Amino acid sequence: MKGKGLLLVVSGPSGAGKGTICKALAQANKDVYLSISATTRSPRCGEVEGESYYFKSEEEFKKMIENDELLEWAAFCNHYYGTPKESVYKMLNEDKNVILEIDVQGALKVKKKYPDGVFVFILPPSMEELRNRIINRGTESQEVINARLNTARLEFTHINNYNYIIVNDTVENAVRNLEAIIIAERCKVERNQQIIKEVCDI
Amino acid sequence: MKGKGLLLVVSGPSGAGKGTICKALAQANKDVYLSISATTRSPRCGEVEGESYYFKSEEEFKKMIENDELLEWAAFCNHYYGTPKESVYKMLNEDKNVILEIDVQGALKVKKKYPDGVFVFILPPSMEELRNRIINRGTESQEVINARLNTARLEFTHINNYNYIIVNDTVENAVRNLEAIIIAERCKVERNQQIIKEVCDI
Repeated sequence: MKGKGLLLVVSGPSGAGKGTICKALAQANKDVYLSISATTRSPRCGEVEGESYYFKSEEEFKKMIENDELLEWAAFCNHYYGTPKESVYKMLNEDKNVILEIDVQGALKVKKKYPDGVFVFILPPSMEELRNRIINRGTESQEVINARLNTARLEFTHINNYNYIIVNDTVENAVRNLEAIIIAERCKVERNQQIIKEVCDI
Repeated sequence: MKGKGLLLVVSGPSGAGKGTICKALAQANKDVYLSISATTRSPRCGEVEGESYYFKSEEEFKKMIENDELLEWAAFCNHYYGTPKESVYKMLNEDKNVILEIDVQGALKVKKKYPDGVFVFILPPSMEELRNRIINRGTESQEVINARLNTARLEFTHINNYNYIIVNDTVENAVRNLEAIIIAERCKVERNQQIIKEVCDI
């Protein structure tokens, strides 16, 4: 069924595995693209313009804000991060499904500007498991671990603004669920009024 | 993710292939069951009580109506047909997904009694293709073919009461879409309040 692509907004606490799930889905599906953010921070070693990020000067970024060229943006650690509308809308119009992997605050902003989006929250199987996953990375101090868990608890209070939850018990299951959400959403009656008109001749 | 099973109501014009799709899905998924209707018509050769239908006397059927034991019922060619609540609810409570393959009028009745149901309309790729499929059965008179196409057109006017459409271009694709709808619906936030409470401890 042809139509306009889906905008999938995927959130979830640090350690829930949303990055892994989104990447695996995009790799397995040629019609799924990960959105690329714009940022004012400097490229790190190995990062490529237009692949990792769109790297912008602060002046350029502020102009994008002024011209309403961003779906959402936020300042974090003295740098700006945001989602450029242009590349997202271009892909959607080419019938591609676009994934934005952003935090709850960003997701709520996108929901206002793009209510047709599909909002998915990735959950860990339990808070204990989330704590273990963060600890097992081995790089975080106790302070950072606690801060992350507190942020997770804050984000959970917004889950009811999302359409779907996926419990990330295994990456394979989680990817299968996200894939199913895309297929199902594209079958929704309200997204297929043109096809209904054509087939049913009404 | 454990929870209550889904009630899937599948409709679509004669010739759209809904029977084939539902059977294929149930055969491939051990947690999907086709609901068995009750009827007052006599068993045909090879039909088995409790598999093909629940065969009832007219008196028994009328008592089921009186006792509100049917999700929906209708009279057709001097016989009663209906969906017994008991077996459907039993399977849903065992976390099975139950498919009701019924017409639009029946579906609208079920929607009133069970608004949590998921309503799926199967469409042919085109009206021309629908006509060809009915003709290729080779058993129908021109009159019957025209009557079926007219009924299809009438049914189409209710499509917007459904949640999803599936265009049956190939059975394989259609089954994949129906399967995805089940997986996605089970990920819906409103169906997972208990899990959210448990995981998030909120």
